[in-house]
Amino acid sequence: MPSPALTRKPSTAAPSPAAALKQMLARRQNLMGPNAPLFYRQPLVLARAKGVWLHDVAGRKYLDAYNNVAHVGHGHPAVVKAVQRQMARLNTHTRYLDAAVLDYHERLLDKFPRALGSVVLTCTGSEANDLALRIARLGTGHQGVIVTDWTYHGNTASVSEISSAYNPRPVVPHVRYVRAPQAGGDFVEGVRRAIAYFRDSGIGLAAMLIDPVFSTDGLQAVPKGQVKQAVALVRAAGGLYIADEVQSGFGRLGRFWWGFQSHGVVPDLVTLGKAMGNGYPLAGVVGRRKLIADFRREVMYFNTFGAGHAACAAGRAVLEVIEAEDLLANARSVGAALADDLRALKDEHSCIGEVRGQGFFLGVEIVRGRDDPAPDAERTAQVVERMKDAGVLVSNIGRHDNVLKIRPPMPFAARHARLLVRALDQSLRPAR
Amino acid sequence: MPSPALTRKPSTAAPSPAAALKQMLARRQNLMGPNAPLFYRQPLVLARAKGVWLHDVAGRKYLDAYNNVAHVGHGHPAVVKAVQRQMARLNTHTRYLDAAVLDYHERLLDKFPRALGSVVLTCTGSEANDLALRIARLGTGHQGVIVTDWTYHGNTASVSEISSAYNPRPVVPHVRYVRAPQAGGDFVEGVRRAIAYFRDSGIGLAAMLIDPVFSTDGLQAVPKGQVKQAVALVRAAGGLYIADEVQSGFGRLGRFWWGFQSHGVVPDLVTLGKAMGNGYPLAGVVGRRKLIADFRREVMYFNTFGAGHAACAAGRAVLEVIEAEDLLANARSVGAALADDLRALKDEHSCIGEVRGQGFFLGVEIVRGRDDPAPDAERTAQVVERMKDAGVLVSNIGRHDNVLKIRPPMPFAARHARLLVRALDQSLRPAR
Repeated sequence: MPSPALTRKPSTAAPSPAAALKQMLARRQNLMGPNAPLFYRQPLVLARAKGVWLHDVAGRKYLDAYNNVAHVGHGHPAVVKAVQRQMARLNTHTRYLDAAVLDYHERLLDKFPRALGSVVLTCTGSEANDLALRIARLGTGHQGVIVTDWTYHGNTASVSEISSAYNPRPVVPHVRYVRAPQAGGDFVEGVRRAIAYFRDSGIGLAAMLIDPVFSTDGLQAVPKGQVKQAVALVRAAGGLYIADEVQSGFGRLGRFWWGFQSHGVVPDLVTLGKAMGNGYPLAGVVGRRKLIADFRREVMYFNTFGAGHAACAAGRAVLEVIEAEDLLANARSVGAALADDLRALKDEHSCIGEVRGQGFFLGVEIVRGRDDPAPDAERTAQVVERMKDAGVLVSNIGRHDNVLKIRPPMPFAARHARLLVRALDQSLRPAR
Repeated sequence: MPSPALTRKPSTAAPSPAAALKQMLARRQNLMGPNAPLFYRQPLVLARAKGVWLHDVAGRKYLDAYNNVAHVGHGHPAVVKAVQRQMARLNTHTRYLDAAVLDYHERLLDKFPRALGSVVLTCTGSEANDLALRIARLGTGHQGVIVTDWTYHGNTASVSEISSAYNPRPVVPHVRYVRAPQAGGDFVEGVRRAIAYFRDSGIGLAAMLIDPVFSTDGLQAVPKGQVKQAVALVRAAGGLYIADEVQSGFGRLGRFWWGFQSHGVVPDLVTLGKAMGNGYPLAGVVGRRKLIADFRREVMYFNTFGAGHAACAAGRAVLEVIEAEDLLANARSVGAALADDLRALKDEHSCIGEVRGQGFFLGVEIVRGRDDPAPDAERTAQVVERMKDAGVLVSNIGRHDNVLKIRPPMPFAARHARLLVRALDQSLRPAR
């Protein structure tokens, strides 16, 4: 009989994939703390990515219809090269002068209406929204901010106060929530009431800060003119209009560079992030020149990494790729065809409700059935998992967690859209 | 007679350097807003940088004794290569799993006492301090924060409230300022009074947040035991001790990896930034595991670019270079010799007061003269300008703006220190 030592599995053997995953999750929980957000019941362990494709460590590939940070595609060589060259050459801060850094500010501002003439670069969208609130509060002398009631604008202390999707009720007296615009909704009336509250309470109105596509709110279709009406009320009350373009900007909607353009009214401040450096941390606040000047005169604002040379090189490469590869036109045409194909799936799948959105920011509502329009969060979560198993990555949003969020990198082509539609079709069929 | 068109200076001629600079400054003011901070009366227009040297567009080179972000040296090839490879391969976020990302968390935590077992990565030091305050306030259930009265901790709304160098008086009831520790000072007594205020007002104490070397306060020599005493008072009152290592960390002091180690008491939370990614935006909060876990359980905290793959690759390369090039030992020995040489200049220059600091974080106090220890801010500013003209970059700090701040990249060698001392010597002599 062989000794137990010889029959025991040697300790150097690789653990099973399931055991390895469990070990990795335990290690992650210790190092990062529990509840650090993670996607999927069986999380993905990625190895590499290129364009619209992600590859996991087991060699499986996934079509990326979710990640908006890799705006011009994962690992785009123009961005990688621009950053590498700039990091090797010079990567300091704005306390020294640099023509290329100013060039980037100018190229970025060229994409905006002339009324928005200055920009303060930061590193993250959270910093951008935090700064925009500071500018608005200093500029108006008031503290009140109106936001929608199921939204996310970032993670600083100040910006967390307005991220209503994670704060079920306003946690502070200077923030009021309103329901996002939608058919039959009362967005404008909500804004009117919030303004009255800020007037009557003496808090005063600083700004209405909204995501122009109301994505976290569920990417609802906005009845024409509602944002414009609300902005008129806000301005009449002395407040500013801040558009959070962290998700909707840089051409994602196809028709426009910026989400606010779909509402026909120019914001006072616009915040940017995510897509801006294709993964290199870069964000910022674009605004009316006087607002930014007034803030700068009162407050010493310096951001060590903001507007760094490498950040600006990344940002410039992103703008250039968007234009060289005609990515707005791609988002427009492929996005429109994709939306049509998703709508066509309704014939087969009674659980598909509205298909909403523009360009490469689409939402597919999942409901109980043709005769029961109640949201079906459970099924939506299941579809997200099953699409992943079918090799396509999407997510879900909305106050009822029942809207599939489709937000691919911008070089997503017609053939990729067809793969997505096929995967969704399969994922809605009964499991075999 | 030639036509006027032929005699007129062609418009394509390059403007004079002075005119070009003026034009660039006007352009910058429009694009970025006025008062965006800038160094030097005649700002530097940089072209490239390598190691401890910066080169301007006119081909002049400057020894960098100021920039701490380029911690392991400007354009260090190991960091540039690590970022470039990672950006080309995979650069997403922590909602997917990645062993290399976890490895970096672990390697970073290995540099800390075992009591500090978790880390939340962010992009900037401002985000790190903002997050640390959120963790401390949620963990203690109180709002009060004690900081020194001439300090800077960042630029978010929350962190601006504690950046006393730019807010002459506490702007909110939940922040109290105390004078930084120094010989003959009353730091501990100030902390005791602040704690009493928070108790009596019902606000309650969340934390004392300090830069362990009190750099913006003027890099005062801390009387032995004072920080430890203050921390004991803070803890007895239920508050936390947060060390802001954004400037003092990653071995800058030579003897230690972290500034808090010079005071013999382990913080509850430590914030990191600047040096961490050698220019790639990377920062974070290291803390007691339970504190971070309790926060994570209550708050959905996600930072899109924080702990991104490229950020972690940069951070890991920085740790490896610090060890491979033995940069702590370099900071210790070159820093000590530099401090001695700076002190030796006192024989020749009666305007040199105290020479303070450790390793590569030194302060040279500029006073009126041997018999008049009054701060001489004007002369300090002049010396900074003259040292720049002599090809060496330093800055000034302190509540009286009269402390030369010497904080070079870590590969600063003995020969560079000699150049610095010579330039300071020249800059203190009467102008010829």
